[in-house]
Amino acid sequence: MISIEEKSLKLHEDNLGKIVVQSKVRVETREDLSMAYTPGVAEPCREIHKDKEKAYIYTAKGNLVAVVSDGTAVLGLGDIGPEAAMPVMEGKAILFKNFGNVDAFPICLDTKDVDEIVKTVKYLAPTFGGINLEDISAPRCFEIERRLKEELDIPVFHDDQHGTAIVVLAGLINSLKIVKKSFEEIKVVINGAGSAGIAIAKLLLEVGVKDIILLGREGIIYSGAPKINKYQEEISKVTNINNLKGTLADAMKESDVFIGVSAPNVVTKEMISTMRENSIIFALANPIPEIMPHLAKEAGAKVIATGRSDFPNQINNVLAFPGIFRGALDVRASNINEEMKIASAHAIANIIDEKDLTPDYIIPEAFDKRVAPAVAKAVSLKAIETGVAKK
Amino acid sequence: MISIEEKSLKLHEDNLGKIVVQSKVRVETREDLSMAYTPGVAEPCREIHKDKEKAYIYTAKGNLVAVVSDGTAVLGLGDIGPEAAMPVMEGKAILFKNFGNVDAFPICLDTKDVDEIVKTVKYLAPTFGGINLEDISAPRCFEIERRLKEELDIPVFHDDQHGTAIVVLAGLINSLKIVKKSFEEIKVVINGAGSAGIAIAKLLLEVGVKDIILLGREGIIYSGAPKINKYQEEISKVTNINNLKGTLADAMKESDVFIGVSAPNVVTKEMISTMRENSIIFALANPIPEIMPHLAKEAGAKVIATGRSDFPNQINNVLAFPGIFRGALDVRASNINEEMKIASAHAIANIIDEKDLTPDYIIPEAFDKRVAPAVAKAVSLKAIETGVAKK
Repeated sequence: MISIEEKSLKLHEDNLGKIVVQSKVRVETREDLSMAYTPGVAEPCREIHKDKEKAYIYTAKGNLVAVVSDGTAVLGLGDIGPEAAMPVMEGKAILFKNFGNVDAFPICLDTKDVDEIVKTVKYLAPTFGGINLEDISAPRCFEIERRLKEELDIPVFHDDQHGTAIVVLAGLINSLKIVKKSFEEIKVVINGAGSAGIAIAKLLLEVGVKDIILLGREGIIYSGAPKINKYQEEISKVTNINNLKGTLADAMKESDVFIGVSAPNVVTKEMISTMRENSIIFALANPIPEIMPHLAKEAGAKVIATGRSDFPNQINNVLAFPGIFRGALDVRASNINEEMKIASAHAIANIIDEKDLTPDYIIPEAFDKRVAPAVAKAVSLKAIETGVAKK
Repeated sequence: MISIEEKSLKLHEDNLGKIVVQSKVRVETREDLSMAYTPGVAEPCREIHKDKEKAYIYTAKGNLVAVVSDGTAVLGLGDIGPEAAMPVMEGKAILFKNFGNVDAFPICLDTKDVDEIVKTVKYLAPTFGGINLEDISAPRCFEIERRLKEELDIPVFHDDQHGTAIVVLAGLINSLKIVKKSFEEIKVVINGAGSAGIAIAKLLLEVGVKDIILLGREGIIYSGAPKINKYQEEISKVTNINNLKGTLADAMKESDVFIGVSAPNVVTKEMISTMRENSIIFALANPIPEIMPHLAKEAGAKVIATGRSDFPNQINNVLAFPGIFRGALDVRASNINEEMKIASAHAIANIIDEKDLTPDYIIPEAFDKRVAPAVAKAVSLKAIETGVAKK
């Protein structure tokens, strides 16, 4: 039997990667050439020179998204460099295409310097209708995203943060329906204070969760804790309302929801048994979750989700990013704001009728073809409503 | 009747530009996803992390060329900026695809600063197997190309310089067969001392031309001339062997070949009548040549070429760049050196059997399907011969 690793190597080798650039127009005759290239091409150039916005009419910009990485935080592999990150970025690009009909182009940058990455992406921006940041390590990713969002007028989205947060929120919306609890009353423990953990905390605050405890490598994050970065310090001021200190076991006591974006097997059955009734466990470490689903269930958890496709309830970013960019590009949104993210999460959650919800079916399957169009529509509408749509 | 400009606008608008990014692999099932993306994709990442060269096996890098411009010297339009340059770069990309089966991706940079352009292209390099610089104004283009060639181990090629020079050389090789003159004995006048003019002069020196006079806006270029840039000063030391000063009319006296990469209608019948017998006129200004072919003929020119497809003998870069990159990528050349350029020119020229050569047929048609494979083969072989092939 051939392993998935060997199959993947063969797939990549047989195809020499996963993307190609194709022409949308025919170039077989002199007349074709004179329209697609010189001399005719001068005319769209002149039109865009008069009005830059015309780039959305006469070039591919309006449907082109750059998938930008520096290769510093690739899957579970860490800082493997730009060349080695490319298979993931090509993979992301083809998911954009398959699920959202977005033309995405992978760009792996040979620099880890924040200023240089920001400048480079700004220089590239005229070519693209949107920027998807990918697998850039925290805390650098926060500053890179913030500065690009401020300085560019096209949507900038760091999928490891917001894609994950959106799909987690979607899963939580439906989980809470099952356990009949509200955002306002739950206590949420988030293990992992990198890009995903912090983004999840922020999005949950946006939807009304009051009590969030975030944990990093040194345990519970509190204001003034040693060894935390400025983004963790910042989030500590709006989470951990009781100013707790301690370990994961301490944090999980009397909590309703555990969300792990951390490491394999760090949660025990004992910890889950100290949670409130009808607890919800999102154990998203890949490929080995923070606790295996059957153990969580034995310990009393009501709803369990993981990042894996071989267990029920896969929290998979592919449910979000293709539809989000599709929707943003469709209305030429200048930004992907908080309202659009929340609308995406509701659109994903609402794919499943309330009557069909079960503890093993809180989130649509990755290949559910209803998801991307629903997300795109929700994002477009919210972009218009919040005034960021330019079309 | 609809003009070519209107047709071109409609073509661009109907298609929303000219390029798309496509997937080479299927993503329809969970297993597809697990091979093309997580978890299987980790394996090619690991392999490339161990050996960067494996990027040529497991990613699209080996067939990907960036078409990079800053939009400062676009066609006859000049400095129109990165957005407005995009239709040309997309056009170039589809020519790469159609003629050379090269996946080319257009990148228009929002900076004109030489250092920033060099840095940006270096940061982008891990993604690409080659860099085609395009429509970057002189003299900046010389430094950008020189530095990138020094610092990158993938081929870097400024098509406005070398593509043009190669096709001119190809045309000249065949023209000289018709008039029975040798490179060593001819006097060549090149009007236009920008990127194309200087590159043509350099390539003609390489093949043995002794007497070249280059003219800029202020007339004949000589060492120490006022208002010339350092690249013109440099070329003046190896051209203009008689240290002439003066006008185009002065330069053309007793010359064998006129090559114009300059402006419409700057050559008169009188000037041509002062040239030696069997003169060769390449009037390449577009769309209006330095002299119209029928006038050049009336004045006694034997062979006349232009940049236009509606006259005989079109000097068109599309004869060179797709085959050159095809050949360079095929053997993973680290560089496109002078020998490879000269081999390309001979490959183009040799498409036409000597017995079929006429003054109206010195260069193959743009759509001659024999050209790109012949150029690719010549380039590959010469890369191996000169030791720059890595495969």
